[in-house]
Amino acid sequence: MRTLELRGKSVVLVDQTLLPGKLKFIKCNSANSIARVIREMRIRGAPALGVAAAMALAVAALNSGTKSGRALLHELRRAADKIRRTRPTGANLFVGLNRVLKAALKAGDVEEMKWVVVREVRRIADEDVRANKRMGRHGARLIKNGATVLTHCNTGALACVDYGTALGAIRAARERGKRVRVIVTETRPLCQGARLTAWELKRERIPVTVITDGAVGHAMERGLIDLVMVGADRIAANGDAANKIGTYTIAVLAKEHRVPFYVVAPTTTIDMGTPTGEKIPIEYRASREVEFMGGKRLVPKGVKVLNPAFDITPARLITAIVTERGVVKPSELKEFMLGR
Amino acid sequence: MRTLELRGKSVVLVDQTLLPGKLKFIKCNSANSIARVIREMRIRGAPALGVAAAMALAVAALNSGTKSGRALLHELRRAADKIRRTRPTGANLFVGLNRVLKAALKAGDVEEMKWVVVREVRRIADEDVRANKRMGRHGARLIKNGATVLTHCNTGALACVDYGTALGAIRAARERGKRVRVIVTETRPLCQGARLTAWELKRERIPVTVITDGAVGHAMERGLIDLVMVGADRIAANGDAANKIGTYTIAVLAKEHRVPFYVVAPTTTIDMGTPTGEKIPIEYRASREVEFMGGKRLVPKGVKVLNPAFDITPARLITAIVTERGVVKPSELKEFMLGR
Repeated sequence: MRTLELRGKSVVLVDQTLLPGKLKFIKCNSANSIARVIREMRIRGAPALGVAAAMALAVAALNSGTKSGRALLHELRRAADKIRRTRPTGANLFVGLNRVLKAALKAGDVEEMKWVVVREVRRIADEDVRANKRMGRHGARLIKNGATVLTHCNTGALACVDYGTALGAIRAARERGKRVRVIVTETRPLCQGARLTAWELKRERIPVTVITDGAVGHAMERGLIDLVMVGADRIAANGDAANKIGTYTIAVLAKEHRVPFYVVAPTTTIDMGTPTGEKIPIEYRASREVEFMGGKRLVPKGVKVLNPAFDITPARLITAIVTERGVVKPSELKEFMLGR
Repeated sequence: MRTLELRGKSVVLVDQTLLPGKLKFIKCNSANSIARVIREMRIRGAPALGVAAAMALAVAALNSGTKSGRALLHELRRAADKIRRTRPTGANLFVGLNRVLKAALKAGDVEEMKWVVVREVRRIADEDVRANKRMGRHGARLIKNGATVLTHCNTGALACVDYGTALGAIRAARERGKRVRVIVTETRPLCQGARLTAWELKRERIPVTVITDGAVGHAMERGLIDLVMVGADRIAANGDAANKIGTYTIAVLAKEHRVPFYVVAPTTTIDMGTPTGEKIPIEYRASREVEFMGGKRLVPKGVKVLNPAFDITPARLITAIVTERGVVKPSELKEFMLGR
């Protein structure tokens, strides 16, 4: 099942805020509405955002009434600007937009441009699925038969177009006949681990146990975890990786307990233009994500909340990065990317 | 304000599950009803549980119709057995019960026994407040002017009879004219940090910021935290400390960032009969604490949850333990306790 598709002149995507209670699809007919669902995190996950951003341009093109290529290009650039302002940390969103704009530049008239844009967007979506499957193959080799993998947040079909990054590797291990168990953190504040990862794994009948973010240290100390696999929103040239808040804490614990810590992400997440993790902008989100739970106020009114959406895991805490082109040590990332 | 009091033949205590929305007091007229409020965590915090357990025996004594001292002693022992089965990890609960039973043993007839029990219970409550104030004095010296303290869960007046342990030290620093800021983890699953600590500090006008448990690593890495102060539910003879789940994770992060990590607890929390942290029984609580948020299901039905209420922080990660009798390194705890 693709969680995100271009259908006719619309984008159809799963509303991830309603899971696991409800599996509902949203239809977006404009770049504006896609920007809104991204901001509201109805869709999230770096690879999914890359594809959704590209699809926003396809929707803008397909619904445009303009007659000149130049005017359409202008509209596409404006749409891209809107999407760019939604979420600053992930790399894929920017990559997706730039790739579609670059393709559009090569077209002559309006009709050719629309056609080129849609073709490029379909390629991006298909490549995402193919990259996931290849990453899965590489990642599955790192999972021994009978292993328990700790994962954080959601890196499954919902975070991509289909299959997943870290969850893709787990799926692939299982498809190759390995017994594999998963422990997933609930991943506060929006609980993508408890809500989405548990939901995906249950559907796949892969045994999964949910723990609170605070219980990771205890679980490692008790020897319950054999390896960690997480996704990434942006990987800097030196191998530092931005991912969902809480990832850095898990990486420090993994080092303390000598548990291997793998980042599974497509090469589109690797941003050679960002030299180190320090240069990755961290998104701080609204306090209300932490203040309320199921509509009930938890934090007393007037008390400050700090709600970073991401943190940076330094390269030295990452055992290896699993990409669609193979497994690489963070220290060898530059050579690996140049050798492409 | 005492959060827990013996009034007439009843115990009156704050219902901590309703805060910060509602400040409501519950009246308990039997040891059974006190056992229930302890199990439901309407009252929690190791020192508060020590006093509440003792008060359960006072209530049992005061409401008993028996005419013989021997029969009353039997009733008290049965009541103590019930309370003992509520929560296994914290030391103070057992200390409180044993102390009252020991005092009761010395009484002659029923009336004397009731009087002796009530006197002992009042002493325990008063000593808790005095110990908190003394701990606060010792702890305040460790907080520099302008410092930001990270704390976890709730160790304030609500966790004790009044004032608090780690929060007592913060209060004391403020009373001595120091500028102090607090960052508190929300402390999943029951969010005592977000709900109770934020509520207490707001009332005291001490600046407080709530973060998710997963954001501690990020906050330390950004240099936002000068020291950590937490409470303890049981400290073993070798200095290992059991405390709210998530504490061990914070201690590992503190070591990684060279941030001092202090445990603030009365000597009643130190259990010389437990040689190491490995011997402290860890309570695992019901899955539903994690599964639901504000009545809304987060974890898909049928997915397993592991919900440890505590974890063990090894002595090597603890900079010092702050007690009412002074500050001690965990490695010197045995001599310190013998020197009493």
